[in-house]
Amino acid sequence: MTEHQIGTEGGGSAAAAPQVRITDSTLRDGSHAMAHRFTEEQVRGVVHALDSSGVEVIEVAHGDGLGGSSFNYGFSVQDEIELIAAAVDEAAQARITVLLLPGLGTVEDLRRAHGAGAAVARIATHCTEADVSLQHFAAARELGMETVGFLMLSHRLGPAELAAQARIMVDGGAQCMYVVDSAGAMMLTDAQTRVSALVAEIGEQAQVGFHGHQNLSLGVANSALAAQNGARQIDGALCALGAGAGNAPTEVLAATFDRLGITTGVDVHGVQAAAQDVVRPFLPGLPFADRAAIVQGHAGVYSSFLLHAERAADRYGVPAHEIRRDPH
Amino acid sequence: MTEHQIGTEGGGSAAAAPQVRITDSTLRDGSHAMAHRFTEEQVRGVVHALDSSGVEVIEVAHGDGLGGSSFNYGFSVQDEIELIAAAVDEAAQARITVLLLPGLGTVEDLRRAHGAGAAVARIATHCTEADVSLQHFAAARELGMETVGFLMLSHRLGPAELAAQARIMVDGGAQCMYVVDSAGAMMLTDAQTRVSALVAEIGEQAQVGFHGHQNLSLGVANSALAAQNGARQIDGALCALGAGAGNAPTEVLAATFDRLGITTGVDVHGVQAAAQDVVRPFLPGLPFADRAAIVQGHAGVYSSFLLHAERAADRYGVPAHEIRRDPH
Repeated sequence: MTEHQIGTEGGGSAAAAPQVRITDSTLRDGSHAMAHRFTEEQVRGVVHALDSSGVEVIEVAHGDGLGGSSFNYGFSVQDEIELIAAAVDEAAQARITVLLLPGLGTVEDLRRAHGAGAAVARIATHCTEADVSLQHFAAARELGMETVGFLMLSHRLGPAELAAQARIMVDGGAQCMYVVDSAGAMMLTDAQTRVSALVAEIGEQAQVGFHGHQNLSLGVANSALAAQNGARQIDGALCALGAGAGNAPTEVLAATFDRLGITTGVDVHGVQAAAQDVVRPFLPGLPFADRAAIVQGHAGVYSSFLLHAERAADRYGVPAHEIRRDPH
Repeated sequence: MTEHQIGTEGGGSAAAAPQVRITDSTLRDGSHAMAHRFTEEQVRGVVHALDSSGVEVIEVAHGDGLGGSSFNYGFSVQDEIELIAAAVDEAAQARITVLLLPGLGTVEDLRRAHGAGAAVARIATHCTEADVSLQHFAAARELGMETVGFLMLSHRLGPAELAAQARIMVDGGAQCMYVVDSAGAMMLTDAQTRVSALVAEIGEQAQVGFHGHQNLSLGVANSALAAQNGARQIDGALCALGAGAGNAPTEVLAATFDRLGITTGVDVHGVQAAAQDVVRPFLPGLPFADRAAIVQGHAGVYSSFLLHAERAADRYGVPAHEIRRDPH
């Protein structure tokens, strides 16, 4: 029986600097699936496992970013600043990052996070609203933090217009700009063309990143294509922890990137153990592409619209999926 | 706020014949995750939901194919021939297919399945062993059945050698040849190059198909790339039902293909309802890319080797993942 190694992509780790930096968002985006009830013990366990597996950046905050703990978005069980401080204390090499949505979090929240030891500020806006982030980038840079811009629901803008929004944040101080597929709605070419457009527009001044979701089961594939098209930062979450179908799973990204020969510096078996032995025991349920998640990806609508569509469907006697469908 | 539809791929259904025929394997490959304990009531429910959603082919058999019910592979709770007959009775338009692994099932099993109304015979061998299928294809054609060849663990052969094996089955009577990613080990280009090689080799005499698994979360992406590279038959299972990380989910395939403009004739919302309302209530657990599943995809080894690797690891004091690693 003749047997061959798959393709020509078989990888291995290089001694050089990794091509891609993985940011793990289990303790921020994953917080949605935990009803924002992470405890300090859980945070320490996850940070320890990620840090010792070589993950360079770990995000810790309320699921909706700094200041998200509220009646509107759900209260955290433990103050996020305490969790950030615990993460900083636990990490031997990893940098701790926080997410901030201007209008929901404030510059004052950012100062407190920085005071607790957060080293990277990720500022997120809807993909058409980059200009509301300028004072936050200025404050982050003044604090000496590394800066990342996050263009949410990036599928709602074409590549050129998305790149123009990225340019606004880079001019405001962002050192990396993420294409964020919040609804998991991007087809394979959608992610590639957006990443390429951002690399062309801002590549000389800043890096490009990609944050994928699993609604249509393309988060890992889109992340691989993003890396192959020049993205230098990629997000994941252990066990895909996140709302609905969840995020691209960090442990799958590590294994797949290793097979593709895309170096990350992450120990493939270490993050598998982090997922299996640290996160899975406290998971309230497994992420799953259920109908709500698929509809979100298929129609390209944000998750908070789904409930309203269901209610309107009941009231007016029309199928909810017809209401949710994106107008062409 | 300017908003755009994603990319240029936005689809819709055409009136013409679908480009891709979906074969749903919930009631065969999914049987592994059910410990082969499907009841007639469950089979009727799934077939009814798939059939009324426009799925053209539905596979029903023991997880290891006809005759799989045994001490070695696990006993079915109800005889597969009865389940096939129930499926045939329930389907108004869909054709019922069976899988047969020569050596495990026999020509006599195929005759019984045909007698119960199965219309399509899928004959599966390891990707290097196509020649053991010849008498089974001959028997299937003699019975007047449609024929499909299934090259399991297709990642173990390079594209040209895989195409040569496909040629053997086509010469033996196969009307479609599947690239089967049994271990979910194919990277994006691995699936594309193999499908393209088969299309080039057998495209004038037979169709090409693709069967993907979710070990590295690439089953749906690989299926889309397979279709874009000429595959005309694609497999899925509702809720990704299958061992470990499971199969490419039929309901996600339908939504993603619709977005890509690849026509399947399947009602996107109908298969979502089939997954959510018919299959999910009886699922013993959600498919998940756990460590065993990821290692299988990453190392490209078959799942039944995993337990032996764990035992050898205990015995010899070496990490199990080092044993499982595919030699380069």
